[in-house]
Amino acid sequence: MNQQTGKGSLCFSEAPFIIGTASVVGTKEGEGPHADEFDCIGEDDKFGQDTWEAAESSLQQEALTLALGKSGKKPEDIRYLFAGDLLGQLIASSFGLKSFQIPLFGLYGACSTCGEALSLSAMTVAAGYADYVAAVTSSHFASAEKQFRFPLEYANQRPVSATWTVTGGGAFVLAPAPENGKALAKVEGITTGKIVDYGVKDSMNMGAVMAPAACEVIAQNLEDFHRKPEDYDAIVTGDLGKVGQEILCDLLKKKGYDISEVHEDCGILIYDNEKQGTGSGGSGCGCAASMLSAHFLPRLAKGELKRILFVPTGALLSTVSFNEGESIPGIAHAVILTAPA
Amino acid sequence: MNQQTGKGSLCFSEAPFIIGTASVVGTKEGEGPHADEFDCIGEDDKFGQDTWEAAESSLQQEALTLALGKSGKKPEDIRYLFAGDLLGQLIASSFGLKSFQIPLFGLYGACSTCGEALSLSAMTVAAGYADYVAAVTSSHFASAEKQFRFPLEYANQRPVSATWTVTGGGAFVLAPAPENGKALAKVEGITTGKIVDYGVKDSMNMGAVMAPAACEVIAQNLEDFHRKPEDYDAIVTGDLGKVGQEILCDLLKKKGYDISEVHEDCGILIYDNEKQGTGSGGSGCGCAASMLSAHFLPRLAKGELKRILFVPTGALLSTVSFNEGESIPGIAHAVILTAPA
Repeated sequence: MNQQTGKGSLCFSEAPFIIGTASVVGTKEGEGPHADEFDCIGEDDKFGQDTWEAAESSLQQEALTLALGKSGKKPEDIRYLFAGDLLGQLIASSFGLKSFQIPLFGLYGACSTCGEALSLSAMTVAAGYADYVAAVTSSHFASAEKQFRFPLEYANQRPVSATWTVTGGGAFVLAPAPENGKALAKVEGITTGKIVDYGVKDSMNMGAVMAPAACEVIAQNLEDFHRKPEDYDAIVTGDLGKVGQEILCDLLKKKGYDISEVHEDCGILIYDNEKQGTGSGGSGCGCAASMLSAHFLPRLAKGELKRILFVPTGALLSTVSFNEGESIPGIAHAVILTAPA
Repeated sequence: MNQQTGKGSLCFSEAPFIIGTASVVGTKEGEGPHADEFDCIGEDDKFGQDTWEAAESSLQQEALTLALGKSGKKPEDIRYLFAGDLLGQLIASSFGLKSFQIPLFGLYGACSTCGEALSLSAMTVAAGYADYVAAVTSSHFASAEKQFRFPLEYANQRPVSATWTVTGGGAFVLAPAPENGKALAKVEGITTGKIVDYGVKDSMNMGAVMAPAACEVIAQNLEDFHRKPEDYDAIVTGDLGKVGQEILCDLLKKKGYDISEVHEDCGILIYDNEKQGTGSGGSGCGCAASMLSAHFLPRLAKGELKRILFVPTGALLSTVSFNEGESIPGIAHAVILTAPA
C-alpha cells in the first residue's frame, strides 16, 4: 500500500503517470528562448477576450482542451480537476474550467499551485479514487499586475530583483498506467511544504520570500528519501529568479546540501532576462506549469532526464495583508518525476 | 480497495473518522439560538487583533488549537492540513495556521470550502497517506464585507435576500479509526461538485447563486448511492438561507426528489434571523464549519442522527469578475457523515 515516507513525504507504491500535457503562453514567452517548445503562443495577450481575467481563463481552457486531446480523453473521462491561479477567489480557474463540467477541487498555493495540484492529482490516482484526473494552473502578467501591484497604464519602474509574471498555463492528465503504452513521466512521490515566513516585506523581491520555503521542502525531500542532490538530474524550482536562486543555494549549503550543480529555475529559463527586461526572471503559477509541460516532461519522456525534483514555489502575497504591514509568507511543494520506462 | 461510486462519488471501503472538532465564533453568533453549543465565543469580533483579517486568522488558530487539544494530538502528529477561507490569497488561513508548521494544502471553494477540506482530508486518511489530518475553515463578517461589498463604515442597507457572513471557524481532526474507542462521526463517502452557473449576477442573493450547485451535487449523491432523501436523517446545506432553500427544494422536486422533510441549512439555523436582522440567514466558510462542529457532530456522536449529507455551498464571487459584468458561479461539495458506531 501507499507509503508515508519520512516526516513529510509520500512514496507511491503504485505510482501514477502523466499521460498528457499542454502549455499555452503569451507573446513575451513566445519571444523567449523556449518559444518552439510551447504548444500554443497567443497572437496577443488578450486571447480574444475583453478583459485580462477572461484572457487568463482562456489560457486554462485552451491548455486543458489541448492536454485532453493529446491524451485521447474527453472531459467526461476525467473524474476530478485540481486547479488554481493567483487571482482572488480563483476567477481564472472558475471561469476557465466551468464549461468542462468536471468535479473541481479549487486550490491556492500562489505560484506553488502547480505542485499542489500535481501532488493531490497523484494522490487521488494512486489511491484508486480516479482513473483519470487533470491538474491545471495559470497566471497572466496583466491580471496579476492589476491584482498585486499597479495598473499597467501606470507604467511603474521595477527593481532588478522584481520578477515578471508569466502569461501562461499548463495542464496535465494523470492516470494509473501509461496510455497505449505511452506516458511522459511517472510521479514517484511528493513532499508537501509548510508555510515558511522569514519576515520579508518586499513585494518586489519574491525570490527572497520563496527561497526559504523551497529550501525547507527540498531538504525535507532529500532527508525523507535518503538522497543527495546529485540523485536528481535536476532540482527544478518554479520561479525564484536569479536573486532567489542565490539565496536558495546558500541556505541549502548551510544544511549541508550543495545543489548548485543540479539546480534549474523555470523563472530563469523562460525568458532571456537581459534582452527581454524581465528582471530577476519569470514568475507565476503559469511559469512552472508551462516550463514543466513544454520543456521538462518531453525530456523525461525521451529519457534524457531520469529523475527530477519539481518544486514550484509560492509567495502568499495579498495586497490586503501587505498594506496592513504583514510580511509575505512562502510555501513550496515538491514532486518527484521520473522517466516513464 | 477504495470505491469509485457512480459518476461523481467515492464510498470509502476504509472509512475515516472525525475524532475531534472545535468551533470558535463571534459575538453575534454567540447571541444566536446555538450559543451554548460553540466551544468559544469571542469577547469582541477583533479577537485581540488590530485588523479584521488578523481577527479571522485568530479564529482558525483558536479552532485548530482547541480541536487538537480535544483530540489529544499535538501539531506534529498531524501530517497534513487542508484549509481555506473567503479572502483573496487565503490570508486568514496562511497567517492563522503558519505557526503550526504542518504541511498545508490551501483550498478555495468559497463557502463550500469546508466540504472540500473534509473531502480531501477523508481521501487522504482513507488512502493511508496520513494517520492524522486536520481540516480548518473560517469566515469573518467584517473581513468579508470589506473584501466583497462595502466598508462597514458605509453602513449600507441590505435587501432581505442578502445573507450575513458568519464570524466563525471550525476545525476537524480525522483519523483512520476512533481514538481510544471514541469518535464523533464516520465519513462514509463524498460527492464532489462541479461549477454550476445559472447566470445570476445579484451579489445580494447568494442563495439563488448556490442553490443550483447544491441541487446538482445532492442529486448526484442520491443517484450514485441509489438513495432517497429519507435515507438521510438530514440533508444539511451550508448557507443557502431562506431564499436559497426554497429554490433548492423546487429544483430538486423537478428532478423527482422531495427533500423538504429532511432539509436543514446552517445559514438558517445559526441566527434568529428576524430578531437578529440577518436577512436570509448566515453565510461564509465559517457558517457550515461552526454549525457542523457545534451542532451536528455532537448529535451524530450521540447517535441522535444516524446519517447526514453535509453539503457546504459556495458562491464564487469576486469583485473583479463581478465588476467586469460576469455572473457568479456556484459550487457545492457533499460529505456523507454517519454515527461512529
